[in-house]
This record gives sequence, structure tokens and C-alpha cells, in this order.
Amino acid sequence: MPDLTTRRLENLTDGIFAIAMTLLVLSLDFDKVTTSLTTASLHQLLLAQLPKFFNYARSFLLLAIFWILHHQQFHEIKQTDRGHIWINMFVLMFIVLIPFSTTLVGDYPDDWMSEVFFGANMFIVGFLFSLNWYYSTRNYRLIERSFEAKQIALSKRRGLVTPAVSLLAIMVALVNTDLASYTYLLIPIILYLPWFKK
Amino acid sequence: MPDLTTRRLENLTDGIFAIAMTLLVLSLDFDKVTTSLTTASLHQLLLAQLPKFFNYARSFLLLAIFWILHHQQFHEIKQTDRGHIWINMFVLMFIVLIPFSTTLVGDYPDDWMSEVFFGANMFIVGFLFSLNWYYSTRNYRLIERSFEAKQIALSKRRGLVTPAVSLLAIMVALVNTDLASYTYLLIPIILYLPWFKK
Amino acid sequence: MPDLTTRRLENLTDGIFAIAMTLLVLSLDFDKVTTSLTTASLHQLLLAQLPKFFNYARSFLLLAIFWILHHQQFHEIKQTDRGHIWINMFVLMFIVLIPFSTTLVGDYPDDWMSEVFFGANMFIVGFLFSLNWYYSTRNYRLIERSFEAKQIALSKRRGLVTPAVSLLAIMVALVNTDLASYTYLLIPIILYLPWFKK
Amino acid sequence: MPDLTTRRLENLTDGIFAIAMTLLVLSLDFDKVTTSLTTASLHQLLLAQLPKFFNYARSFLLLAIFWILHHQQFHEIKQTDRGHIWINMFVLMFIVLIPFSTTLVGDYPDDWMSEVFFGANMFIVGFLFSLNWYYSTRNYRLIERSFEAKQIALSKRRGLVTPAVSLLAIMVALVNTDLASYTYLLIPIILYLPWFKK
Repeated sequence: MPDLTTRRLENLTDGIFAIAMTLLVLSLDFDKVTTSLTTASLHQLLLAQLPKFFNYARSFLLLAIFWILHHQQFHEIKQTDRGHIWINMFVLMFIVLIPFSTTLVGDYPDDWMSEVFFGANMFIVGFLFSLNWYYSTRNYRLIERSFEAKQIALSKRRGLVTPAVSLLAIMVALVNTDLASYTYLLIPIILYLPWFKK
Repeated sequence: MPDLTTRRLENLTDGIFAIAMTLLVLSLDFDKVTTSLTTASLHQLLLAQLPKFFNYARSFLLLAIFWILHHQQFHEIKQTDRGHIWINMFVLMFIVLIPFSTTLVGDYPDDWMSEVFFGANMFIVGFLFSLNWYYSTRNYRLIERSFEAKQIALSKRRGLVTPAVSLLAIMVALVNTDLASYTYLLIPIILYLPWFKK
Repeated sequence: MPDLTTRRLENLTDGIFAIAMTLLVLSLDFDKVTTSLTTASLHQLLLAQLPKFFNYARSFLLLAIFWILHHQQFHEIKQTDRGHIWINMFVLMFIVLIPFSTTLVGDYPDDWMSEVFFGANMFIVGFLFSLNWYYSTRNYRLIERSFEAKQIALSKRRGLVTPAVSLLAIMVALVNTDLASYTYLLIPIILYLPWFKK
Repeated sequence: MPDLTTRRLENLTDGIFAIAMTLLVLSLDFDKVTTSLTTASLHQLLLAQLPKFFNYARSFLLLAIFWILHHQQFHEIKQTDRGHIWINMFVLMFIVLIPFSTTLVGDYPDDWMSEVFFGANMFIVGFLFSLNWYYSTRNYRLIERSFEAKQIALSKRRGLVTPAVSLLAIMVALVNTDLASYTYLLIPIILYLPWFKK
């Protein structure tokens, strides 16, 4: 099946990203808002969501970074084959885990294992995205011959940022869990460095 | 990435709106329908959904207004760039919160903080939609040169209605929560005034 | 906005149907499968799903009938306008309620109010679909002039079957709830009568 | 309606696969991660997910196999008709059950009835996919005349692998439930045999 178009793979991926992004709200404690709460405890619960919102926003932005990466990769990838579809299926298999590793790390921000779990999830997704790009561009397998080698190399470099930072965050988590959760801020910072822009 | 098309951003947005609209039903107490209810308490529970249905319908119609606005904006926006994609990601980040602020305000209609929370959610979404339009139309960044300046100005004016009314609703909520929930009726009324139609 | 295309409205609708169809499984008691069950009570629970499966299948097939109707209507409808979009938003507002009225009628098959609730849900969706078609075809508002008047009339006739049968089911439910649940079988039967086929 | 295009059926199917794939994570016990757990019991819970992850991955890969099959079939199927749409609706009716039969078999890996339930679900989906292909290719009903008879026969042969293996797994489950869960590994193995590749 070397001449299948990528439209349906994009549709499936967009659907899974949409659901994963929506399920991220499960990391907020809205399910604990029950009609039996007193005014005081309701207000307390709502104010307690403020720190949790940053955990939610972090995962949303990481998913957004992955989605934009997917969008950019598939803007160039004009067709698909069996190997390429399977790499993408493994990507999706770990994308759908993100809402749950987010909830975990939101509920146990001080536990090293929850931070390692979250970091491992991000690392695997980031690694598979890079694999996707290596596979697709190798010998111009799924991209057009006219695509510049310099651009391919730049995309490879950019694709390695998220798995590398995730790996770093895992190691930091073993020492200091608070610091680990801020490590991911390196991703947008690095992606804006000149060397990663062209 | 200045020449990416908007198709996939539209797909992702439609997916997230579809899920958010569906999750609105969580604001109704259907999860409390368990097999152990007596006939009398079941009937009581069902009749108690009638006022909650109006809360559900209000959020559904606000989401519909936002979706139609998105549809109209993207009918004109022919391409996307990095800044534009990120504005849209922040839109989606707050769209997915709407089912939960709806549940909150449905469960605690008389609590000022729940009304303020709901209003803040609507204000942020409405504000980001306006930002989206300002960004896209500025110096014809993402729209065609042939697009009439008068039309752009009209769209800007229409886009400000929802954030302005939401801000008003927040202020009203601090005084009278019942009145605050009716404030949103101003949105369709204002949008039908001649000055907001052409 | 008279020249908006229908593509995005179709995408939103397909997304909502996909979620509603998936949430129908909530009417089965799979959430009661917890790890603490004994073998005997697990087997009992699974066998108890058999009658509930028919309730699930009935709603799935009704949703399928509605989706096919939507597909057929939008195959002819080439553009959309403000009134048309709003009719469709109200359709979606009641489509997302179907998983919950299905759960209700599955948990309380012998309660007249649950059957009336389910029937009312189906009636409103069916009625709005008919309204959609009347609105779109009136004076060839959204369809092509070349579309045969005979075909329009046939579609109108077919569109009235579901709301009419739902109304009948509501009335039957007030007398006999068991009979009411079988009333919906009339829909496929009537749609296969020659008078409703051309 | 013999000239309807397949685009919307593909959209609906992609949406349902995306949701089903996402709901598979319910088979992991992440909902048991509550803020009241001690560090020790949290770590125990996380480590206990490792075997459950293989159950999750198995269902994800089976769904991926089905989705790729759907993609390949619809790459050739150029139009749809009433019979074809209804076969696909029945496919979707059983696709949405997969997350729940996965949870069942994950919670009760040693229970023969849960393995039979899972196997029956896979068998029905696989059988309906084969029916879909037989229906579509019979007398070139929905495919192009230029499509090679040899290719049609190969697709038929490949399509029978999943229902056949599922039937085998059901029979094995009656004897040995552990062995049954590994039976599905035969699917990728068989699909890579030369006789099933051309």
C-alpha cells in the first residue's frame, strides 16, 4: 500500500489529539464538585484548582507542541506506507496516556515516580515523533525530492528537543521533583534559539 | 511555516467543540440515575432536570455562537502561521473548560464564585477569539487583500460582544447571581441590532 | 454569510454523532465490573447485559437512521446560512442527550416517564431534522434548482416517519411501556413501504 | 442513494476509532489514583499497571489492525449505497464495545467468560469487515472495474485472518485462558506469511 494518502491518518490523529486535550481537564478536581458541598468548602476547592491549572496548562501546551510538530511533518509527508502507519499508531498509543500521566503528576506533585512516569510518557511520544521523521525522510521515502536537505536536518534537530528535555526531566525528578516539573520550560526556550530556527 | 493551510486546525477545533458540546450533558444529573431508585425519587430527579436543562442549553448556545464565529473567521482566513496557531491553541485550552464551569454553575446557581468562574471562562474565550481576528486581519496578515475594510471592522465589533457581556455578567454576579445568569441573553440581542449587522 | 460551505457543519455533526454513539455503551452496566466481583456474580452481571444490549442496539440504530438522514440531506444541501446553522445546532443539542435517555430507559424499562423521556428526545430530533429539510428546500433556498420536486416531497415524507412514530410511542408508553419500546420497529418497516421509497 | 461519496462515512468511522482507542485507557486503573493514597500504595498501583499495559496494548494494536484494514478497503471503495452504509453501522456498533471488553478481560484475565466475551467482540468486528469487502467487491458493486481480481481475492484472504484467529481464541479460552490471550499474536504472524502478502 505505498500510494495511500495521509488524509485519514491526519483525521484519526486530530480526533485523538482533540479527545486527549479534552480529557486533560480530568486532572482538575471538578469531579469533586458535588451538590453536597458547603459554600466554604466549594470556594476552597475552586481556589485549590489554581496550582492544578498550571499542571493542566503544561500538558496542554506539550500536546499543542506535539500537534504542531505533527502538522508540520505531515505538511511535507505526501503519502504513507505500512511502516509509517505503524509508527503513527504507536505515537497515538502513547498520546492517549498523557491525560492520565497528567492527572497522576497533578495529584502527586512531590512523588518522584509520578514525575518519572510523566517524563517517560513525554520521552516516548517525542522519540516516536523523531522516528517518524527519520523514517519518512530517509532516502526521500515519503517526501518530495525537492525538499531541501538543510530543512530535513533542521526538523530532525527540532524533533530531538522534546525527548532530550524529557530525559533530562526524568533524571532531575530523581533528585528534585519540583525542579523536574519546570524542566519542560526548556522546550519552548530551546526551540526559539537561533540554531534551532534555521 | 507561513504557508500551512488551515484545514487541520479546523479539524482539531471541530473535534474539540464536538466533545465539549457532548460533555455539557454532565451538567445534568443523569449520572445520579442508578438502578436502586424508587419510582417516586426517579420522577423527582427527572423533573429536577428541567431548570438544569436551561443551564445546559445556555452553555450549548454560547458554544454554538463561538463555533459559528470560528467558522466565519476561518472562512476568510486562508492560511496560518506560528502565532496564529498558538492563539488558537489557547482558545481550545479554555473551550474544554466550559463543560466544567457549566456543571459548576448548574450545581451552585446561587454562589457568586461559580458565576464569576463561568463568566471568566466565557470572557477569556471571547477575548482570545477577538485577538485571533485582530492578529489575522492586521496588515492583511492571513486574509486576502480583497477583503473589505468595512467587513473587517464589523467582525471586530461583533467579536467584542461576548467578552464585553461576560465582563458585565461577572460584575453583576458580585451583586445578584440570578441576574448574572440572564445577562448572557444580551449576546443574541446585541448581535441582532442593526449597528452590529452591517 | 449566505455562501458558507457545509463541510465544517458536517465535520462537527460527524464528531458529535461519533461521541454520542460511543457514549451509548454507558447504558450497559460495564462500569459495575469491578475487580472485587466473585466469578459467579461476574457471570451473572455479564448475562444480565443481554437484554440491555437490545436497548443499546435500538438507540444505536436510531442514531444510525438519523445520521444517514443527515448524510442524505447534506448530499443535496450545497451551502448554509445563519438560520440553517442554528436549526442544526438545535439538532445537535438533542442528539447529545440520546445516550442519557437510553441509559434511563435501560435502567427503568417499566417506568412510563423514562419511556416518555426517551420518546420526547427522539421526537424532537426527528422534528428538527424535518424542519431542516423544509427550511433548506423552501424556494430552493440551499439546494440546486435542478433538484426534482418529486424527490423533495419524498424526502419530506420519509423525514416525518421518525417523529410520527416517536409521538405514537409516547402515547403507547402511557398505556403499556413494554409495547412502547417495540413501537420504534415501525420506523424501518414504514421506510421500506413502496410509498416511502419513491 | 447509489452515488453518495464515502467521505462522511470515513469521517464518522475515524471519529469512532479515535474515541474507542482513547477509551481503552479505562482498562488501566488510573481512576483508582486518588489523592488519599500513601506513597507505598501509589507505587504499588503504578507497578501493577505494567501487566495491564500489555492488555491495553493488545487491544490498541487490534483496533489499529482494524483501522488500517478499513483504510485499505475504503481506498478502493469509491462510493457507497444503503446496504454498504448499514454494514458499516454494524461494524461501528461493535467497535465501540471494544474498550469495555478490554477492561473486562484486563480485570478478570483468568475468567473464561471474559476471554470468550472479548473473543466474540473481535470475531464479530472481523466478520463484519469481511462482509463489507465481499459486499463491496461483488460484481464490482462499489469498486472500479479496473481493480484486479487477484487483489480482491488477496484482500478477502487477509480479511479472514482476524475472525478466524478470534474464533480459535474463543475455543482455546474454554480450555486455557492464559493461552487464549496470546492466540491473537497469530494475527500479525499470519499476515506476514508470503501466502497472505500476494
